[in-house]
Amino acid sequence: MTNAHSFRSLLKKKSMAVAMAAHDPLGAKLVEEAGFDAVWGSGFELSASFGVPDASLITMTDQIETTRRMVETVRIPVIADFDTGFGNAINVHHAVRRYATAGISALVIEDKTYPKDTSLREGGRQQLVRIEEFQGKIEAAVSAGGEEGIVIIARVEALIAGLGIEEALARAAAYCDAGADMILIHSKAKTPYEIETFVGRWDGRRPIVIVPTAYPEFDEARAAATGKIGLVIYGNHGLRAAVAAMRQTFAQIRADGGAAAVDSRIATVKEIMELQGDAAMRELEKRFLR
Amino acid sequence: MTNAHSFRSLLKKKSMAVAMAAHDPLGAKLVEEAGFDAVWGSGFELSASFGVPDASLITMTDQIETTRRMVETVRIPVIADFDTGFGNAINVHHAVRRYATAGISALVIEDKTYPKDTSLREGGRQQLVRIEEFQGKIEAAVSAGGEEGIVIIARVEALIAGLGIEEALARAAAYCDAGADMILIHSKAKTPYEIETFVGRWDGRRPIVIVPTAYPEFDEARAAATGKIGLVIYGNHGLRAAVAAMRQTFAQIRADGGAAAVDSRIATVKEIMELQGDAAMRELEKRFLR
Amino acid sequence: MTNAHSFRSLLKKKSMAVAMAAHDPLGAKLVEEAGFDAVWGSGFELSASFGVPDASLITMTDQIETTRRMVETVRIPVIADFDTGFGNAINVHHAVRRYATAGISALVIEDKTYPKDTSLREGGRQQLVRIEEFQGKIEAAVSAGGEEGIVIIARVEALIAGLGIEEALARAAAYCDAGADMILIHSKAKTPYEIETFVGRWDGRRPIVIVPTAYPEFDEARAAATGKIGLVIYGNHGLRAAVAAMRQTFAQIRADGGAAAVDSRIATVKEIMELQGDAAMRELEKRFLR
Amino acid sequence: MTNAHSFRSLLKKKSMAVAMAAHDPLGAKLVEEAGFDAVWGSGFELSASFGVPDASLITMTDQIETTRRMVETVRIPVIADFDTGFGNAINVHHAVRRYATAGISALVIEDKTYPKDTSLREGGRQQLVRIEEFQGKIEAAVSAGGEEGIVIIARVEALIAGLGIEEALARAAAYCDAGADMILIHSKAKTPYEIETFVGRWDGRRPIVIVPTAYPEFDEARAAATGKIGLVIYGNHGLRAAVAAMRQTFAQIRADGGAAAVDSRIATVKEIMELQGDAAMRELEKRFLR
Repeated sequence: MTNAHSFRSLLKKKSMAVAMAAHDPLGAKLVEEAGFDAVWGSGFELSASFGVPDASLITMTDQIETTRRMVETVRIPVIADFDTGFGNAINVHHAVRRYATAGISALVIEDKTYPKDTSLREGGRQQLVRIEEFQGKIEAAVSAGGEEGIVIIARVEALIAGLGIEEALARAAAYCDAGADMILIHSKAKTPYEIETFVGRWDGRRPIVIVPTAYPEFDEARAAATGKIGLVIYGNHGLRAAVAAMRQTFAQIRADGGAAAVDSRIATVKEIMELQGDAAMRELEKRFLR
Repeated sequence: MTNAHSFRSLLKKKSMAVAMAAHDPLGAKLVEEAGFDAVWGSGFELSASFGVPDASLITMTDQIETTRRMVETVRIPVIADFDTGFGNAINVHHAVRRYATAGISALVIEDKTYPKDTSLREGGRQQLVRIEEFQGKIEAAVSAGGEEGIVIIARVEALIAGLGIEEALARAAAYCDAGADMILIHSKAKTPYEIETFVGRWDGRRPIVIVPTAYPEFDEARAAATGKIGLVIYGNHGLRAAVAAMRQTFAQIRADGGAAAVDSRIATVKEIMELQGDAAMRELEKRFLR
Repeated sequence: MTNAHSFRSLLKKKSMAVAMAAHDPLGAKLVEEAGFDAVWGSGFELSASFGVPDASLITMTDQIETTRRMVETVRIPVIADFDTGFGNAINVHHAVRRYATAGISALVIEDKTYPKDTSLREGGRQQLVRIEEFQGKIEAAVSAGGEEGIVIIARVEALIAGLGIEEALARAAAYCDAGADMILIHSKAKTPYEIETFVGRWDGRRPIVIVPTAYPEFDEARAAATGKIGLVIYGNHGLRAAVAAMRQTFAQIRADGGAAAVDSRIATVKEIMELQGDAAMRELEKRFLR
Repeated sequence: MTNAHSFRSLLKKKSMAVAMAAHDPLGAKLVEEAGFDAVWGSGFELSASFGVPDASLITMTDQIETTRRMVETVRIPVIADFDTGFGNAINVHHAVRRYATAGISALVIEDKTYPKDTSLREGGRQQLVRIEEFQGKIEAAVSAGGEEGIVIIARVEALIAGLGIEEALARAAAYCDAGADMILIHSKAKTPYEIETFVGRWDGRRPIVIVPTAYPEFDEARAAATGKIGLVIYGNHGLRAAVAAMRQTFAQIRADGGAAAVDSRIATVKEIMELQGDAAMRELEKRFLR
C-alpha cells in the first residue's frame, strides 16, 4: 500500500485529521513527534526559509526536493503544496508524476494564476484562472496520481480574491465534478464568519479543508462540530515560533556577549542529536562498521 | 572588492569578530538583523535540518547550495563549513573553487578523517589525518581561494580526539606554516579550562577561533581579554532555540486543539512577510509589473 | 571586469559573434575547444537531456544549476536561456540576480506567455504577452543585471506566433526602448526569407541575433553581409549530433553483440579523461597530495 | 513488484543480461530504445558530463538526482553507480535508503578507498579497503535495500590495483559471504586474459559482471560461453560516441561558417522532439488543456 493509500484510509477512519506545516525534515519530525496526523509541506514556509516572498520564486525543483526529504524522514503522510500547479495542466501532470515517486500522500492545488501571490498579503495579486481551465488541471492531477491514490485537494481562492461566497461555492462544486477529493476553502478575513458561511452552505459532497491562520479562534472543536470538515491545516505556526525564538535568542546573546543565559532555555545539543537519529546511527555503527 | 576581501579587512579592523550559525537564508537574515559580524554556515545545523546525523551524510552539493543562497540573501560575510574537506586535497581544491564563485568569505576545514563524526558526540569516531596530509589540504585551499581572498580557518580537532594539548599546539603551528589564516581550536570539555590552556600557550602567530558551545560561560569578554582570539562562533543556538520553540508550540496546539493561545506568542505572518522582503517586492511590482 | 563586461567588449570588437548550444559542462568545453565565441545554454537541449518537452517543464533551478556549472568550466562567455522569464517581471528580476552571481554574460528572454512551448513545434502553443508587460520584464532584467553588465537579448516570437513582420518590427523597437541590448528574431519558416525581410526592414538601432536552425543555408557569411546581425546562435547541433551518434553506436553494439567494431570510431577513454581535466588533476596531485 | 524485484526476475530468466551506460535521461531513453536490458548510471560518464575527473568530485546528491530522473524516464531497470559508497558503511546504508526510494534496481559498490580514482587511469590512485570493512559495507547495502530487492553488485578492484588474481578471488568470495548478489570483476589489461583467468577460476557461486572497455574483443558471445557471466556492462560508449560526433560537427560548422552541410547528418529537430515525448504531450494537451 502506498503512502497515499494509507492517507486515504486514515481520512476515512478519522472524522477529522489535523496537519501542521513544516519546511524541512527536522520540522517534519517535530510535527510527527507532536502527534499530528500529517505534515503540510508549506510553500509559504519554504519560501520564507529561502528568504523570498511566497510568489512562485522558489521552483518545483526546490519544493519537490524538500518534500521528498520530508517523506524520507517521517512515517506520517506528507501533503505537498502545489501552489498553482507550476504552470498549466501539462505542468501539473508532469509534477504529479514526479511527486508520486517522491512518496507524497496528498497535494493541494489552488485556482490562482501563475505566478501566484501569497493569499494573506494585503494588496496582493489575486487572480483566478477560468473554472474550465482549473478543472483541466484537477483532471490532470487525478489522472497522474491515480495509481498511487494521491488525494487531490482543490484550493478555492475565490474569497481571497474577493469574488464572494457564490463564486466560491460554484467553483468548489465544479472542482468536485472534475475529481477533487477535498475542497480547501481559504479566507483572510479576521473572523471565521466567511468560512462558517461557506461551510454552512456547502452540500457536503466532499470534505472541506481549512487553514485557520487568520482566525485562530476557529479551533478543532468548532471545525469538527460542522460535520463537514475533514482536515485542518495549521499553515505556518512552526516557522513563526522558530523566528520569534531565534530573534529573542540572538538578541539576548548580543546583549550578554555570551550564550550562558540562553543555554538553559533552548534545546540541548543532545536533544538535537536525538532528533538527527543518533540512536539509529549507533545501531548501524555496531552492525556495519569494522 | 570580493566578499572575502571585505571580511579580511573587517578582521583587521575589529579586534574580535562574532559569528552566529544559520542553516537557511531566513536564519542568515536573523543573524544579520541581530548585528552579528558574520554567518556561520554550520554543517551541524544543516545536517539536523535535513534530519540526519552530522556525519558526512549531507553532501558538498547540499552544503554549497544552502551556503550560496545565504550569501545571496545577506550583506554580511558567510563562513562556510567545509567539514573535513569532502575527501582529499583534490576535493578541497575543487570545492574551494566552487565555493569561491558562490561568494563565501571564509571557510573552516577540520583535520579529521572523512567521513567525519560530529565533534560533541559522546563516543564519536574522532580520527585525525596525518599532519602532512592536512597541510596539503590547507595549501590546496589557499591556492584555490587566494585570488578571492578567502580566509582559510584550520580547525584543530586534537582535543576532541583526546590527543592532548601538545598535539593540538603542534598541529596548529603546522597548519599556520601551511598557510592557514586562523586556527579554530575545538573542545568538548564542560569547562573552558582546556581552551584557556591552549590559548595561553599559543604564541599568537595567527588569531584563534573558538566555538564555545560546551562552555558558554566563556563569553566574549573573556575571549577578548586573551588578546589572541579573533573570532567567536556561536555554533548552533538558533537551531536549538527554534527546536525548543517549535516543540512547545506544537504541544500547546495539540493540547488546546487550536492555535488561539499560541498566536500572540509567535511571530506574526506580517513579520514573516517582512523578512521575506515584502517591501522590496512591492517596489519591484510598482516599477516593473504592467 | 565581470564575464558579462568582457562579453560586451567582445561584441563591440567583433562585427559578429558566433555561439553554439550546450546542455552540460562537457558540451560547453567542446564548444570552447572548437573556437566558438560563446556557449548558448539552450533550454531546448537541457529539456531534451532531461527527457521532457521544451515546455517549461524543467525549472529555473534546473537551468541555473547547469548554467552555473558551465560557467565554472569554460573561459568563454555563457549566454543563459531565460525562456519566458520563469513568470512575471518579479520572477525575472529575481532570476537575473541569481544568474548574475552564477557568472553569466548574457541572457535571452522571449515574449511568449508562461508556460512556453518550443518555437519549432508544429501546432505549438505560441501566445505572446502584451508589449507593455514584456517591456516591464526587460526593464526588470536590465535593472537586475546592470551592475554586472549582463547583455539583455530580447527574443521576438511574433513570427513564430504567425503575427507577421509588422508586429515583429514593432515589438523589436519597443523592446529596444525598454533597454534591450540585442533583438533575437526567430522564425520557423523553412527558408530564410522571413528573417531576411525582417533584417532588411530593421533600422539597425540594436544588433540582431539569429538562430538559423530551420534555414541552415543562411550561413555566417550571409548573416555578416547584412551588416545588422551581431550574433549567430547555433541552437541544438551538438545534441542532435550526439543523438545520431549514440543511436548508431548502440545499434551497432546490439547487432554485433560487442563493442569491438565501434571502438575505433568513437572517442577514446583517454580523450574523455583529457576533457575531464586529467592534466590539471595530475598537477594538483603533485602539489597537494601527501 | 518493485523495479528491483523485476530486475531480479529478469536476471533469473535470462542467462546473461546486457546494460549500457548513460548519464542523463535522454541517453537512458536511447539505451532503452536500442533494446538493452538495463541502464548503467555511470559515474564516469556523469563526471565527464560535469567536466570533472571521475574522482569523487561529483557528489551523492548529484548522482542520485540524475539516477532518479533516469528511473522516471525509462521502463527498463537502472543500475546505480555507488563508486566506493560515498564514505563508510553508514554512508552506504543512508545512500541505499535514498536510492531505494529513487527506484533503482541494482547498485554497484567498489572496494576502493574514498575518494576514488577512475579505474582505467594510468598511474591512478588505486587503494583498497580492508576486506572486513568492505563486508560491512555490503551488509549495510543488503540490509538497507533488502525490502525493495535491490541487487547488490560488489565490484572487486584487486586487479586494477595490481594485487593479483588470488587477492581478487579471495575478495570476491568474501563479498559473496557478506551477501553480494553478483561480483563485478574489473581489469584494465589490454586483453581479456586477466578476466578470463578470473572467470575460469571462479567457482560460480554468484554470477559475474564484466565491463569490457579495455578489451572489446571479449564480446557477449565469449562472455556467455563462460557460463558464469550474468551481466555485461558497456561502460561509456554512448558518451564516447557523442563526444566524437560533437567534435566533428562543431569543427565542420566552424570550417563551413554554417550548419547546412552537417544538417542532414545529424538527428532532426523532430526526432529530438519525439524523444522528448512530444506524442505523449499532445495527448495530455488534448485531454487537459482548456
